[in-house]
Formats: sequence, C-alpha cells, structure tokens
Amino acid sequence: MRLLAFSNAGQPALGLRLGQEIVNLTAEGLPSTLDELLRAGPAGLEAAARAGATARTRVHLSDIAFLPPVIAPAKAIAVGLNFVDHVAESRFEPPKYPVLFHRYPSSWVGHGAPLVRPRVSTQFDYEGELLVVIGKAGRYIDKTRALEHVAGFSVFNDGSIRDYQTKSAQWMMGKNFDRSGSFGPEFVTADELPPGASGLRLQTRLNGQVLQDANTRDMIFDVATLIAVCSEPFALEPGDIIIAGTPSGVGAARNPQIFMKAGDLCEVEIEGVGLLSNSIVDGD
Amino acid sequence: MRLLAFSNAGQPALGLRLGQEIVNLTAEGLPSTLDELLRAGPAGLEAAARAGATARTRVHLSDIAFLPPVIAPAKAIAVGLNFVDHVAESRFEPPKYPVLFHRYPSSWVGHGAPLVRPRVSTQFDYEGELLVVIGKAGRYIDKTRALEHVAGFSVFNDGSIRDYQTKSAQWMMGKNFDRSGSFGPEFVTADELPPGASGLRLQTRLNGQVLQDANTRDMIFDVATLIAVCSEPFALEPGDIIIAGTPSGVGAARNPQIFMKAGDLCEVEIEGVGLLSNSIVDGD
Repeated sequence: MRLLAFSNAGQPALGLRLGQEIVNLTAEGLPSTLDELLRAGPAGLEAAARAGATARTRVHLSDIAFLPPVIAPAKAIAVGLNFVDHVAESRFEPPKYPVLFHRYPSSWVGHGAPLVRPRVSTQFDYEGELLVVIGKAGRYIDKTRALEHVAGFSVFNDGSIRDYQTKSAQWMMGKNFDRSGSFGPEFVTADELPPGASGLRLQTRLNGQVLQDANTRDMIFDVATLIAVCSEPFALEPGDIIIAGTPSGVGAARNPQIFMKAGDLCEVEIEGVGLLSNSIVDGD
Repeated sequence: MRLLAFSNAGQPALGLRLGQEIVNLTAEGLPSTLDELLRAGPAGLEAAARAGATARTRVHLSDIAFLPPVIAPAKAIAVGLNFVDHVAESRFEPPKYPVLFHRYPSSWVGHGAPLVRPRVSTQFDYEGELLVVIGKAGRYIDKTRALEHVAGFSVFNDGSIRDYQTKSAQWMMGKNFDRSGSFGPEFVTADELPPGASGLRLQTRLNGQVLQDANTRDMIFDVATLIAVCSEPFALEPGDIIIAGTPSGVGAARNPQIFMKAGDLCEVEIEGVGLLSNSIVDGD
C-alpha cells in the first residue's frame, strides 16, 4: 500500500494512492495522520485497505498538495556516516556505533514544496536518504526481530547547512534549519519492498545531474541494526522515524563544492519507494 | 507567578501556586498545559493571575503529583559545556559557539517522580541546570531584545548515561534514556527573577552531599546569547525550552567517579527558582 498525507482545504488528510488517484481516507472516517493510523496496529492498515476498496470518490494525484507522510513524529532520529564512501569523503573514521542526531519536524517539508536556503548561509547541501517508519512499539528490540517493528519506508532529503553543522561538534543546528529538508512523496508499506528495504538504488540529482548514486545494501548499519540500537535508550513508538544516512557525493565534499541555490531542483529517488522532488528558494 | 503542571485524576492540569496551596487553573477554564497558555501571549498569564485571585477551591501542595511544567515542547534544546570549570573537567576546549543537542520529552519526569537508571549502564550521572521557557515566538532574535522572548525559568536535571553519550561523537543517545532527566518543580515567571536569571546560586546534591555549587552568572553563553543563537536555524515558539548547561562537579569527572544508583536522592536547587528532587530507581 502507498499512503500519503495531503492538505485538504487547509487541513491535513491521509490518502491511499491507487495509480494516479487518491482515496481520501480521512473523509472515509480514518485518522488524519499516519502515526495515528499506525497506533491502531495492523487493524489500522487493514482499515485503510478496506476503505480504499470501497470508497466512491477519488481525487487526482495532480490536484493535491503533499504534506510529509508523518507530520509530527514523537522521535525523528537521523543517522550520520552510514555509508563507507561518505565516511571517507567526510574525512571521518568509519563508526563502530551509529552516529545519531535529531531533526525537528519544522526542518522538513513535503514533496513539491520549496526547500529554503537561509539568508545566513550559502552552504546548503543535499543528502538523499532512506527513511524508516516504525509501526510497532518496542524497547531493547532484538536485531533478529527488528523488521517486525517496521511499518514501511519513504524518502528523505537531509538538507544540511554545512557551516552551521560544524560550528560546534554537535551537528544539531546545521541539520535543523526551518524547511531545509524534505520527506516523501509517500509512505510505502514494508510488504511492497525487500526485507529492510535492502538492495534498492538511491540517487540524488540536482537540476538533472546525478550527484549521489548508491544502493541501500551498502549501509554500514542496516535497518534492523539501526532499530535495535535506537531502541536502547528509549522505547520506539508507532510513527517514529529513522532517517538512515546518506551515501557519498554530497556537495560539500566535491571539488569544486556544489551547493543548492534559488531556482535549483533537487530530486532524491529510491527504487520502488518514490521520487522526492523539491525546488530551492531563498528565504529567512 | 509560580505555575506548575500536575496530574489531576490522571489528566494533566495547570496550577498556580500560592504558598502551600494550588489553584487548579484548568478547572477554572484555562488551558491544561503551560505551552498552550503561553501561546495566548501576555493575556494568558494575566488570565492565570485573575483566576488565581478569584478561585474558591484550592488543593494543598502535598496532595498533588507533579508533572514537568512543559510536557511536550516542540523544541527542547540543551546546551553543553557552558561553564568554564565544567569544560575543563570534561577535557574539552572552551567553545566559541554554543554546543547544542536535543532532549526528547520522554527522557524527563517531573519533580518527585523517580529517575530511572537503565539496566544497560551503571554510569548514570546528574547535571543541575537552569531551564529557560520561551514565551514569545521569534527568528533571528537580536541579543539586545532576547530577554523579551523569555516567559520564565525552571530547574532541570540533565541526567546522562555517560558510556552511551560517548559511543559516537553525537551525544544524543546518552542524553535521551527514558526517564533519565527531570524538570521542575515549577515554572517561575521572569519578573520574579533578575534579568536573564543571572546571579543565582545553583547547587546539585546527591544524598545531601553538595556535588555542584555554582552561580548562573558564570555561564559562558548567557540566556540572551543562547536565545539569539538558538533562533538562527529555526523560529522559537512559546513553550520551547532551552536547558542552559551544567557547572563543574559532575560524577564522571570526579576521582573516584560518582554515579547515581537505586535508593539515591538527587536534588538540584536554584536560588529563587526552586528545588527539584528525585529519587533513583533501577528500571528498563
């Protein structure tokens, strides 16, 4: 199943995509957010499938404004340095333990909405990434059963303001500028993809030029390992997201460097998951 | 004014403390959370004062279970290495720019609730800190006007699992164990304290032994500077909190080291702001 969040007359609604058409699940009596649907357990996704089969009215994909599939997750855990080639280009040592930081929901937009290059920096970089949505709560989750806790996957652009990221040893500021990242276009249930979404091609393109081209099987810490590790300090909850790290090819590591500027179009595509596309604008 | 959140028959409620008594503001028709009250602007605090003056029923302080004054802030920004002596004992260089990280609301409890030493570590450390609550939204806030954005202050114990904090260069995991920190007992409006809550004695005591003893005037980055810096990447919103950093004397830097264990009582006290007290239990 492919679910997406969209703005329906200014209110968030949850949709089921069937080809080029959307069933408004919220109008069919289901929740308006994915995390609320997921908290209902497997019954939530089953209800979505049933509503999709019986709904009479559908809207066309081109008529909606996308919102991020999860609008306000309780936890949004991002992974740094999770591909060997990206570790090398960033001049770090390969990590023995996942490098984890947080992104505030205010730092990302949905598919099709503009990414904002802030007025205080010209070092606005892209990072294409696989995103994991948790479907089942758990603490100290065993790696061998970790994939049972995955509801599905999406695509994330972990947009980074590089000079702010390195103002201190903690990356939070450079990773959290308002509207500097993006998430979408949609949420794909795990059953539609290989286990752990492994073996999928991931590409980032800026104005059509391929700048990142990798495969999700090359992550240092795979999805199951990330879930096991992330569930040690805290219980993971339905709707929590893990943003699984970017491969090599980021703009800051290139010679000459490439940064995003107003008028650019940045696309992140993961095979079978989706194509996330955002233009760049100047803003606050 | 001194406001506090408490559990009223299982539901969060907001109270105004008058001496040893509490007026239930929520029962008087006001919001049930401080951030919602603050979003109403100055009118919110004025309404709280009026309700306090006219309410007929009060409960005694000893009859309530405290909740954290802000239960689910949109942003909870913690500051590392903000006292010179603590920087030295931690073997870091004094920072030129504030070192900032995030704490999830699941990582803290209110006054009087137990702090949990997780089963995976014995390195459970205390960190007494001043906490700032934002009252007025803003982006790129000028330092000279930053204190206009402060609603008030509280006390925070930035409990840290030291071995997890250093598993990678990003501190998030060690700072976010479930119920490893505390926040309270109450929220004190800024007008009751010196500008920027400067010049206040801060003490942390473990089982009565004074382990941290400092003054808020000795922060490397004062409250106004922290607000100016924190509002660069994102807009600060009413109810957002900034946890301003701990002085020297943490357990990990002592010889021999001191860590918290089941049965201990940890108290953080800031002059004029409050005394935050929590016992320690073993748990998940």
